[in-house]
Amino acid sequence: MTVELICVGTELLLGNIVNTNAAFIAEKCAMLGLSMYYQSVVGDNQKRLEELIRTAKKRSDIIILSGGLGPTQDDLTKETAAKVMGRTLVEDERAHREIKEFMAKRSHAITENNWKQALVPEGCKVLYNPNGTAPGIIMEDGQTRIILLPGPPNELVPMFEEQVYPYLKESQPEVICSKMVKLCGIGESSAETKILDLIEKQTNPTVAPYAKTGEVHLRITAKAATEEEAYQMIAPVEDELQERFGDLIYTDDPRVSLEMAIYDLLKAKGLTVTTAESCTGGLLAGQLINVPGISEYLKEGYVTYSNEAKEKLLGVPADILRQYGAVSSQTAEAMAAGGANAANADLCIAVTGIAGPDGGSKEKPVGLVYMSCYCKGRWYTQEHRYTGSRSKIREYSVASALTLLRKTILAMDKPADFNNG
Amino acid sequence: MTVELICVGTELLLGNIVNTNAAFIAEKCAMLGLSMYYQSVVGDNQKRLEELIRTAKKRSDIIILSGGLGPTQDDLTKETAAKVMGRTLVEDERAHREIKEFMAKRSHAITENNWKQALVPEGCKVLYNPNGTAPGIIMEDGQTRIILLPGPPNELVPMFEEQVYPYLKESQPEVICSKMVKLCGIGESSAETKILDLIEKQTNPTVAPYAKTGEVHLRITAKAATEEEAYQMIAPVEDELQERFGDLIYTDDPRVSLEMAIYDLLKAKGLTVTTAESCTGGLLAGQLINVPGISEYLKEGYVTYSNEAKEKLLGVPADILRQYGAVSSQTAEAMAAGGANAANADLCIAVTGIAGPDGGSKEKPVGLVYMSCYCKGRWYTQEHRYTGSRSKIREYSVASALTLLRKTILAMDKPADFNNG
Repeated sequence: MTVELICVGTELLLGNIVNTNAAFIAEKCAMLGLSMYYQSVVGDNQKRLEELIRTAKKRSDIIILSGGLGPTQDDLTKETAAKVMGRTLVEDERAHREIKEFMAKRSHAITENNWKQALVPEGCKVLYNPNGTAPGIIMEDGQTRIILLPGPPNELVPMFEEQVYPYLKESQPEVICSKMVKLCGIGESSAETKILDLIEKQTNPTVAPYAKTGEVHLRITAKAATEEEAYQMIAPVEDELQERFGDLIYTDDPRVSLEMAIYDLLKAKGLTVTTAESCTGGLLAGQLINVPGISEYLKEGYVTYSNEAKEKLLGVPADILRQYGAVSSQTAEAMAAGGANAANADLCIAVTGIAGPDGGSKEKPVGLVYMSCYCKGRWYTQEHRYTGSRSKIREYSVASALTLLRKTILAMDKPADFNNG
Repeated sequence: MTVELICVGTELLLGNIVNTNAAFIAEKCAMLGLSMYYQSVVGDNQKRLEELIRTAKKRSDIIILSGGLGPTQDDLTKETAAKVMGRTLVEDERAHREIKEFMAKRSHAITENNWKQALVPEGCKVLYNPNGTAPGIIMEDGQTRIILLPGPPNELVPMFEEQVYPYLKESQPEVICSKMVKLCGIGESSAETKILDLIEKQTNPTVAPYAKTGEVHLRITAKAATEEEAYQMIAPVEDELQERFGDLIYTDDPRVSLEMAIYDLLKAKGLTVTTAESCTGGLLAGQLINVPGISEYLKEGYVTYSNEAKEKLLGVPADILRQYGAVSSQTAEAMAAGGANAANADLCIAVTGIAGPDGGSKEKPVGLVYMSCYCKGRWYTQEHRYTGSRSKIREYSVASALTLLRKTILAMDKPADFNNG
């Protein structure tokens, strides 16, 4: 079955608020196996709204509208939807009573227009609203189902989860399940090229790539009668991806971030790590510390932005800075070794580069970043050349540094793979 | 003139991402005085996309499309829009060159599908993209203007601001100018209460508050024939806000962030600063280092996540940690004094708290954060109690710490205002 979403609200058209309702509803519908082909946003304008609902009625089985159920004159969604469905509005006694109680609880004075919210289309299913004064509405005719929801997320979200989701699930024979296989250390096009055949040949399950900063996520989605069946269909595809990408995969759990995967590795191997940051200036440590409990493995970190700080805190030899410059593989390696020593940690990931916009030269342009991960007498060192804004360059540097840190931890088991700085 | 927005992307229909591009573009269009009556989201499906563009062409003067300009098979926006406008695709030499350079800079291998992005509709205006491989496109016929933008916000936003906004502005008879008065250290409702009269009485110029993390931004917007005229209308309102908020205002320049304002203060007063971070774990230093050139004033920073690190790097006395605990005003002050001393800096801003989700207790719940700013023998110290997720608590902590740092620098000129720890 197809579902279409129409969000009503001038504040969306003016960009005063971000449409989080659309993402919420779309994700739930996807989980229900409903196909959403269209989302629209329209203002509180009867003519345009009516036209949009009529168009939606022609092309979709289910139409979900959010917003425009308020008490004021310009809230027209209910009236317009009822008109399209050929229903007249009648007062709902319980809605009337609940509005009264709701306003009393908050000792708000009830104004005449509040009672407008107690009117519902005849023969509809009313979705009572404990979190506001606008009840939701479900209207069905032989062909279309129209669902009206209040705009405020704190009213819409619980109403959808508690009343709309179960209602829609009843009429859905199939469930949709998906797994998110997350890769680091490979670009989107290269990743896609490696699985073009899978993308092209498959219909169910499907594989779709999503590019994130420094990462590529592959979503495997299967449609089946039961969850078990869906995951059975996903398993061989996941094995195939494992086969093709190997260590580049750091998780298949949508909730697990790269720093969480690194935390798990540190924990499993009982390794401690520290950070020595120049151009990323604390962002790398900040990202690792996103993970609750990492304090056991990351006790301290260094932001060494100046040469003095690199010498003083990390013991980078002055002549290395003089000879090769602060932005060099040699300095990155000295920072990494020095940081591990200063923090008495097993690993140290060091980053030094030119984030710009100034400070670049012909030999060392803005975007040139060296990173080195030290581990027990050996180094993994990389040169990166990024483009874009200062913040983008730093963001990419953090992503690459996390990838390098993970690579280094994994490589401990295969010494041959190690390159010495 | 009317503008219509079409966002292309299956990930939007699946609810994988929130459509922040729509809010961004809608807000900019509103500032330009363009009327937006429709926003749509459609997947990477040629038939539906084509139908939507044709409908939009009938009812809107300007159509902005975002997304679907990527290198992969299912990116069809450019091809479909060109078809509707009756254009064939030709290779753009500069786009081709820039893709090559972009990929080379990142030492990414170029795959065949990358070159698809160098194709543009004949006779279009190309919007070159320093932040990605997908150029934007402007096509005009007598009646409609179609603007194609890449989907990733870090590419779309600068392209819109630097190339699309000026292009659209040209054809707008009335200009809408605005100033953004940015406040820190006051909540949204208190700020709004202070200017309720202004908000209510005014039509042109208007004042509208926007809540940001730890900040409130007040946008003054005026509509006039010329920019000069508009800014003349804005000036008295800005004076009034200055009158009411005083030092809480850190800038009236939309491009200036709080850390930039702090950088200006450090520079003006020739002060150096360092950071001593526990729960924020580098994010505070990371935010300050957003500012190019701050290295002169922020030479190093400390991430002291463990007690040992607080003792070793900052010289926090063990008995303070024992007696008051790591999360206490006393520890925050010792971290601040110790950090300034270790870095030999004039100022040190220190943060210690419980970001959660674990580690909270009845006396010290998750969200309890102490921060202290040391300056030349004296302290500004604050206790905060935040709610929300670990990342939200850390984000708020960074915002408050920046506000505290600014307050401390400003207070140097009025010693009486100082509270000693």
